[in-house]
Amino acid sequence: MNSKLKSLFCPESVAVIGASNSFDKLGYHVMKSLVEGKYKGRIFPVNPKAREIWDINCYPSLSAVMEPVDLAVIAVPAPFVPDTLHECGKKNVKGVVLITAGFREIEDSKGEALQEEIGRIALQYELPVIGPNTFGYVNRTFGVNASFTPEFSRMNQGGIALVSQSGGFCHLCGFLGLKQRMGISKLMSLGNRLNVGFPELLKHLVEEDEATRVIALYIEGLDNPGELLDTAKSVRGRKHIIAYKSGKSEKGDSASRFHTGSLAGDYQIWKGALRQAGILEVTSAEQMIDAAKALDVCAPLKGPRIAVLSGQAGPGMIAADAVEKAGLKLARFSAKTQETINGLLPPIAIRSNPVDMGPAWYDAKSSLEILKAAVEDENTDGVIFIAMFASANVGLAKAMAEYLKNVAPFKKPVAAVFTAPSGIWEEEIAELDGAKGISVVPTPERAGAVMGDLLRANLLCSVNA
Amino acid sequence: MNSKLKSLFCPESVAVIGASNSFDKLGYHVMKSLVEGKYKGRIFPVNPKAREIWDINCYPSLSAVMEPVDLAVIAVPAPFVPDTLHECGKKNVKGVVLITAGFREIEDSKGEALQEEIGRIALQYELPVIGPNTFGYVNRTFGVNASFTPEFSRMNQGGIALVSQSGGFCHLCGFLGLKQRMGISKLMSLGNRLNVGFPELLKHLVEEDEATRVIALYIEGLDNPGELLDTAKSVRGRKHIIAYKSGKSEKGDSASRFHTGSLAGDYQIWKGALRQAGILEVTSAEQMIDAAKALDVCAPLKGPRIAVLSGQAGPGMIAADAVEKAGLKLARFSAKTQETINGLLPPIAIRSNPVDMGPAWYDAKSSLEILKAAVEDENTDGVIFIAMFASANVGLAKAMAEYLKNVAPFKKPVAAVFTAPSGIWEEEIAELDGAKGISVVPTPERAGAVMGDLLRANLLCSVNA
Repeated sequence: MNSKLKSLFCPESVAVIGASNSFDKLGYHVMKSLVEGKYKGRIFPVNPKAREIWDINCYPSLSAVMEPVDLAVIAVPAPFVPDTLHECGKKNVKGVVLITAGFREIEDSKGEALQEEIGRIALQYELPVIGPNTFGYVNRTFGVNASFTPEFSRMNQGGIALVSQSGGFCHLCGFLGLKQRMGISKLMSLGNRLNVGFPELLKHLVEEDEATRVIALYIEGLDNPGELLDTAKSVRGRKHIIAYKSGKSEKGDSASRFHTGSLAGDYQIWKGALRQAGILEVTSAEQMIDAAKALDVCAPLKGPRIAVLSGQAGPGMIAADAVEKAGLKLARFSAKTQETINGLLPPIAIRSNPVDMGPAWYDAKSSLEILKAAVEDENTDGVIFIAMFASANVGLAKAMAEYLKNVAPFKKPVAAVFTAPSGIWEEEIAELDGAKGISVVPTPERAGAVMGDLLRANLLCSVNA
Repeated sequence: MNSKLKSLFCPESVAVIGASNSFDKLGYHVMKSLVEGKYKGRIFPVNPKAREIWDINCYPSLSAVMEPVDLAVIAVPAPFVPDTLHECGKKNVKGVVLITAGFREIEDSKGEALQEEIGRIALQYELPVIGPNTFGYVNRTFGVNASFTPEFSRMNQGGIALVSQSGGFCHLCGFLGLKQRMGISKLMSLGNRLNVGFPELLKHLVEEDEATRVIALYIEGLDNPGELLDTAKSVRGRKHIIAYKSGKSEKGDSASRFHTGSLAGDYQIWKGALRQAGILEVTSAEQMIDAAKALDVCAPLKGPRIAVLSGQAGPGMIAADAVEKAGLKLARFSAKTQETINGLLPPIAIRSNPVDMGPAWYDAKSSLEILKAAVEDENTDGVIFIAMFASANVGLAKAMAEYLKNVAPFKKPVAAVFTAPSGIWEEEIAELDGAKGISVVPTPERAGAVMGDLLRANLLCSVNA
């Protein structure tokens, strides 16, 4: 299975069965994703009614394709899926993305029967299937967008693999993550999980996918959660695993059943089980993005002592509150660091922790020296660096991006908040976000919270925790 | 005082004392704000060393200005402030924005003495002073930006007055709010509050400022919190009041003392006192923006029964969780509404609540009919409408913006989530956000949370609560 998964996610060639030139077919959008996403392998559109699709030679059936096909993306109506899977098996396709919905998740019991039938076919040919009822997947490392959402090709390349039970969640997290410059290795929805579920993916991502450093799971409900939890335990400490569990509400169970075919289960039990399996639980898409980004690009947070450096006192106080709310504490600077800060800032500002760097607005260099001193202080474990744009401090982000070019990566995590109107600091933030161990988060509250998640993740990752 | 405050915030003329052509003076940025903010009144730059500033005739002193001056914005070093205030008093200026820092908030006890001195001068001339230690204020209703941050002039005009103890918080909330299209009436930092504090502002905003519908306060610490709380009680029910209290942490007290000169106080006592005064407490800048926006543009939420309509099941489940977490419940649709929904969606989707509108992706009209039915259902109190962009549903946002042009405002609050990559749906979202009782929030989690805040606000606003 694992070698086939590798071909599924890094295909040399892709057939799109149900490819279309009509906007109102999902097969149109899959073609758009592959073509606009600049997929470098061969693309074979399959549709008996067309000669060319997206200006590419079209085949009446999969068997009419003479070359080998690694991946088949299927977007034909549900009743045609069994025959299509037989074709895939006979053609020796390595893996399938089954976008079609209308299986175990629907009210009609025929859906359940149809899913059983295709399950048997997949087993017969040992065909790994992502889906049914999926939007597909994107592999940013390999450069293939096998989904019906072309815009995912815009995402930064990085170390985060997002594996979701819901395509909608991928869109939520993906688009929010796009704006936050989240770096993705893979992003996918597993849908009804015919034969590729969380345990298989987890194993694949830990063992076979070097680009992935952080694995983020969105779970609604599983028939056999123990399998996922056991797999997580077996790979504990090798890569960070984050999970967001939904379907917590009273009505969650039935909604989950009708969404991707599994009951949601008791949330409190899930909570404890995730922790025991070494998985970091998050409770919102925003928290997932913040935590995944920081785990991907920052050094580990090895203790609770945080320095808060802020160009404005108010946001600094807010971050200080958030640090304590996250169970961490404000570091007490060493005498040497305090001396450095006192030398750079006049006594009109708060110079302990949180540090108010306001008087350095016209002198970005001082702010950066304070940052350096705080990171190097033996009494700190991590640093929050905050700057609200003001007309008078406009040079700070550029100075910081320049400064980072010439320093070694920070050995402690730095969460940075740069808040500005649209069009200001955007390039600079894009440049410094992810550089040298710095992760940019949108608010001081979330900077404090992400430090808490970094420490929890570090504790959860240790095998004996 | 109240009539003077009106002139301070709606000045016919503004003198900028300490105006400058040098980028590294705050007086430069104040001039920029007034000029680029297209202030329609007269501007009098005052600086003995220049003849023209920002291409405007400059005066050597305030007394050299022959015309009346309503507002003086002061950005000269602290030691010059007492004489400047005397000049303002003699000139019969109606109000002052004192940007200069270096008073009660600094370590040196001279700061405290200087603040006492200028307090006496202000009293002598009955001069209302915003500050010292403020970035200034913006009045979007009247069209004046009397601050050192020109970019605040970009904010939408609306019904939210943000009154903050910290200029940094205004920048945080202002820039986040700019991206969320928050509609502002006034935005200001009170700094050290020489003689204009929260109680005065609250009274002014409730009684004199018709444009303001929601008052949002950021509080670090107050010497006499009872004054604010009593004022809030005395105006209870007339306008919504929201407060964010920082300085909760162990070190908060001392940080607050050194930031704007007052102790932070015990947070738990604050929490209860705010509630008793009818003030809605929020615990993050993002929550403040979401709540203020929804209170500004939505109809009141009169009960806990929420409908969740989502183009994707996963985000719908997440919103359902958030609704229950906020203490609300998922509405059970009336038979008539359920019939409408069943007529529009095939049985392959979840059609109870949350509703999965996925099958209507190529047919925006169905989604909008479901929205209409859910709002009009007697069994619902509010509606959450969610759409993640996908290549296949690209027409939805435009269809919704068009649809809203021809309907009466919704009589129940609608929180909408539209998530898309940059450059997609942006104009449409800007058009529909705030229209007809709809407020756009960034995530399903925050949509659920804001509904909770709407209900809390509605309960808190009733005098007998």
